[in-house]
Amino acid sequence: MKNIYIIGVGLIGGSLAIDIKKKNPDVTIHGIDRQEETLDIALSLNLIEKKAILDDVVNADLVILSVPVDATVKLLPTVLDLISDKSLVVDAGSTKEDICKVVENHPKRRNFLAMHPIAGTEHSGPHAAIPELFVGKTNIICEVEKTAFKLQEKALKLFADIGMRIRYMNPQAHDKHIAYMSHLSHISSFMLGKTVINKEKNERDIFDMAGSGFESTVRLAKSSPEMWTPIFEQNKTNVIETLEAYIANLTQFKEFMEKDDFEAIFKEMKDTNYIKDILNVIV
Amino acid sequence: MKNIYIIGVGLIGGSLAIDIKKKNPDVTIHGIDRQEETLDIALSLNLIEKKAILDDVVNADLVILSVPVDATVKLLPTVLDLISDKSLVVDAGSTKEDICKVVENHPKRRNFLAMHPIAGTEHSGPHAAIPELFVGKTNIICEVEKTAFKLQEKALKLFADIGMRIRYMNPQAHDKHIAYMSHLSHISSFMLGKTVINKEKNERDIFDMAGSGFESTVRLAKSSPEMWTPIFEQNKTNVIETLEAYIANLTQFKEFMEKDDFEAIFKEMKDTNYIKDILNVIV
Repeated sequence: MKNIYIIGVGLIGGSLAIDIKKKNPDVTIHGIDRQEETLDIALSLNLIEKKAILDDVVNADLVILSVPVDATVKLLPTVLDLISDKSLVVDAGSTKEDICKVVENHPKRRNFLAMHPIAGTEHSGPHAAIPELFVGKTNIICEVEKTAFKLQEKALKLFADIGMRIRYMNPQAHDKHIAYMSHLSHISSFMLGKTVINKEKNERDIFDMAGSGFESTVRLAKSSPEMWTPIFEQNKTNVIETLEAYIANLTQFKEFMEKDDFEAIFKEMKDTNYIKDILNVIV
Repeated sequence: MKNIYIIGVGLIGGSLAIDIKKKNPDVTIHGIDRQEETLDIALSLNLIEKKAILDDVVNADLVILSVPVDATVKLLPTVLDLISDKSLVVDAGSTKEDICKVVENHPKRRNFLAMHPIAGTEHSGPHAAIPELFVGKTNIICEVEKTAFKLQEKALKLFADIGMRIRYMNPQAHDKHIAYMSHLSHISSFMLGKTVINKEKNERDIFDMAGSGFESTVRLAKSSPEMWTPIFEQNKTNVIETLEAYIANLTQFKEFMEKDDFEAIFKEMKDTNYIKDILNVIV
């Protein structure tokens, strides 16, 4: 592998660039981005070695698409049109069904591997890129059987080298489960932030209290709307289902309080403490 | 100050014990707890130097009440009955209105200082006690004017020494604001955990996805129901108000999605990103 093209050099693309270059010092990392300024920053931060444009992917051994998922759906067929027969294209999108669907009949479908590396922070852009973001994290691969075997091998080695463990899932299951595990967490955090800002925005001193749980729970509300709006749009049905379940649980909790049923409140929390066991297993 | 009695040697009481002893090596830290086992653990962890019973507080220069808030309401009048005229009693409860009310007419009201040190983790019990938990954190003091001046001074020095900054607030304002900044964060996290467990409990592999936002947002759902049930009970009116606002915001977000109004979804998130500026100010 000689030439890697990263389309979208932000948090994920930039962090992948750092770790891949470290493990593969002989490759050249090329950056492609809608915004020239992002590329200049990525160059100055040594995330990429060369600036490139979309047509250059004809020279790619590997193309990584790490752009918002609406841009992925638009760009992916074009990228597959452009690449050579031996190239591998992967994406890093937080949805998988629409992305897999848009190329299901593409003549170069076997050059594409659909991925979701479960890693990130609430920050975005090239400045947010950090080394070792992916160590010990899960990389979900969808429709692995639709990718050429040699290209699968290449991808698996690359992502194992930067410390990721691999899980396989179909795109429908991925989008359903990630709605609960990630998309709902983001909405709960955004709406928590909104609720508190609406009430408290004129009382700056109040935010001295943020250490009491608010600061960590609202962390995801710093996330990029440019990235998250198309995720919610593509995963609309699943996300609405999670929101209905979440709102029903919150409403029931409120009703228990209104009825002074604090035994039920206790039980709600005690039962949910089970999350400790679940998360301990995976850490 | 020679003898400090800590009633409730868990996360908060134990962490206070560590830092106070470090800054005041000549004092003796006595522990009082409903459960003998907790005291034995606290002794073995060197959080306390001596085990004591409630009646012993007659010898206290300082009594710290760090028990669930329903226990505080019950114990505080008795502790004030027992102590000497020169003793100081403080509490560390997450609600302030009921606690202040229960002693408003107590003959030793001037020996009591109502506090809420805004610090903690999702863990509980003596094993959860850690050094320097309070460094840089806010200590909210309520009704300071009702405490004897010399005892105020004593308390302020003690808590400044362990690194806390002081804010003054009346109990009603404290309970109203802390409902938004802390109590709602905990409920949003507990109900997020419940929603995901209900859906995913039979699919253990799914929790490999927890790095995608869920793990940090659900952290508070590990908190102690024994501690939190009485907090929600005492702060019922305010908490219900925050839940209504939160549920309304979530419902509106869901309705925007149902109507495919992703411009509104974008705006909801963009406006809430303002939380970055607010939290940057306080960090």
